[in-house]
Amino acid sequence: MDGEDQLIEKLALGVPSIGTRAARRIAAPGVQLGIGDDAAVIVPGRNADFVITCDAFLEGVHFLAGRHPADAVGYKALARATSDIPAMGAKPRWFLLTLALPQIRTGDWLADFLRGMRRAARELGLQLIGGDTTRFASVLSSITVLGEVAPGHAVTRAGARPGDVLYVSGRLGRAQLGLEMMRNSAAGETASLIRRESGLLRQHLYPRIRTRLGERLGNRRIASAMIDVSDGLSTDLGHLCAASGVGARIWAERVPRVEIPASQSKLACKRKLDPLQMALHGGDDYELLFAVPRRRAKELRRAPEFRDLTAIGEIERGSRVLLLDADGRAKPLRPRGWDPFR
Amino acid sequence: MDGEDQLIEKLALGVPSIGTRAARRIAAPGVQLGIGDDAAVIVPGRNADFVITCDAFLEGVHFLAGRHPADAVGYKALARATSDIPAMGAKPRWFLLTLALPQIRTGDWLADFLRGMRRAARELGLQLIGGDTTRFASVLSSITVLGEVAPGHAVTRAGARPGDVLYVSGRLGRAQLGLEMMRNSAAGETASLIRRESGLLRQHLYPRIRTRLGERLGNRRIASAMIDVSDGLSTDLGHLCAASGVGARIWAERVPRVEIPASQSKLACKRKLDPLQMALHGGDDYELLFAVPRRRAKELRRAPEFRDLTAIGEIERGSRVLLLDADGRAKPLRPRGWDPFR
Repeated sequence: MDGEDQLIEKLALGVPSIGTRAARRIAAPGVQLGIGDDAAVIVPGRNADFVITCDAFLEGVHFLAGRHPADAVGYKALARATSDIPAMGAKPRWFLLTLALPQIRTGDWLADFLRGMRRAARELGLQLIGGDTTRFASVLSSITVLGEVAPGHAVTRAGARPGDVLYVSGRLGRAQLGLEMMRNSAAGETASLIRRESGLLRQHLYPRIRTRLGERLGNRRIASAMIDVSDGLSTDLGHLCAASGVGARIWAERVPRVEIPASQSKLACKRKLDPLQMALHGGDDYELLFAVPRRRAKELRRAPEFRDLTAIGEIERGSRVLLLDADGRAKPLRPRGWDPFR
Repeated sequence: MDGEDQLIEKLALGVPSIGTRAARRIAAPGVQLGIGDDAAVIVPGRNADFVITCDAFLEGVHFLAGRHPADAVGYKALARATSDIPAMGAKPRWFLLTLALPQIRTGDWLADFLRGMRRAARELGLQLIGGDTTRFASVLSSITVLGEVAPGHAVTRAGARPGDVLYVSGRLGRAQLGLEMMRNSAAGETASLIRRESGLLRQHLYPRIRTRLGERLGNRRIASAMIDVSDGLSTDLGHLCAASGVGARIWAERVPRVEIPASQSKLACKRKLDPLQMALHGGDDYELLFAVPRRRAKELRRAPEFRDLTAIGEIERGSRVLLLDADGRAKPLRPRGWDPFR
């Protein structure tokens, strides 16, 4: 049976990481001391502010260890924690992993979990520098992610001004469709469902995080305010407007939304799935929602992934967030996204 | 019923914290943006390295929500997470709190938890700058703590050299005695036990963290290597020696140990409690264990809390960690402290 030291070694070897020995020779700014001491040591450079966030990913609340493949659990745990970093216009750099596991998950399951987390870390540009491990009856992950941004360039939720155009990346509601598909499958069929429908399930299992886009929007000061759509557009747009002290209007027909293919029409009927409702209130998509002053529109067109962006509305004075239908009728858009306590 | 936004507000008001509004006006190095955005933003000063650590504190593993008072859970969650910061010779500054709670704990229990955490934050000099909240069937806390230390002054586990003197602060085994007392009490008697024996239970419920001592040992370069005794002296001394590539010998009779008062002699018999064994292998004391080169001994005498320090042994060549009894007989000191996976 492994002890804690062996488990820490598995983690350090399982994902890109910085340990104590190699790192101590580095004289440049960055992480001087990583895994294996009481704490990690970061030597700040002069040309970056630090951005820091944390996120919990818990068995039974955010995933089902019996259903979700272990590598998807590892991938998503890190991806969703990282999402807040590009949402600040920053570049992901390092992470700390608190991981609680039952003894039975410390073998094959952990190896698969780490394989998924390794892929996420590579794609996101992250290195593990510390953490904590303990046992628990179910799998609990809590991840702290650190990023860097040019001094003063962090994009908060608070800078949107009337007249700014609201953009969102990707198509919203995809993660919710994936979740509904997983929920609708029998426990024994999950693996075959995932093989068959990997495309439709991707945003639910292996969410894409818009690191390049977010970083550019920050470094070039293109976005005046930004948030990642983790709780749902209606909730997160409400957060952005409240922080900026503004209102907004968005056009329902412009909201880029999940397409429900014929293969899922039975599910859609049964669960009354409506693409617009999923796009407005579904969580877990991790797309970027941001405001752009009109004078920055030209610069925006040069941003990476510009073709994945949609202008869905604009910022207004006041505090009302309105949804306009095809006939131009406005209704208040109430926050009805994910809230763990509702 | 509270939503997540209300819960976050409770946390921000419940402990010393930095939010988004007040902070944005600060131009100096430090936290520019705290709670309430996607991530916190820290502007590094030129005269400090950052030290960062995280720690989980879980119901059923580390505490019992039905037994341990909520304010002690809040206090200890933050204190034990912070312990690694002075153990690096650094000064605690900020923390991020990931908190998962069942709905029934969001009222009075949470208020008491936050009262304990507030007291710890004040004593430790910490401000809350971010976190994550979610629901769960039991109480889970995972805390990330950031500290600052003069550039290059972080004290790792790795600098001990043969001839250095080994010191430990306080008396070891006190937390274990408290734990045994709690375990031995009936569920309904815990509250009266705590009132009656608050002194004996203090290190178990409200562990003292040696912030001033740790910071001085780092800033004045007094300690060549340091670790906090969280898993037990035998285990943590092993970690320090392994990281430094050295051995050590300690004298059993010099190890400062818990005193078991007459009131607990029945418990001591029943549970076969031996003060030396508790001091060697009991965890959760959070005292500092460190090596001091002999030429720094004079400087050490001026350190705060010097009177609480005991020289228990010295660093040697090799890799053996030896315990010497009163007759000078040496035995290997095997790591038999706390390991969650054993």
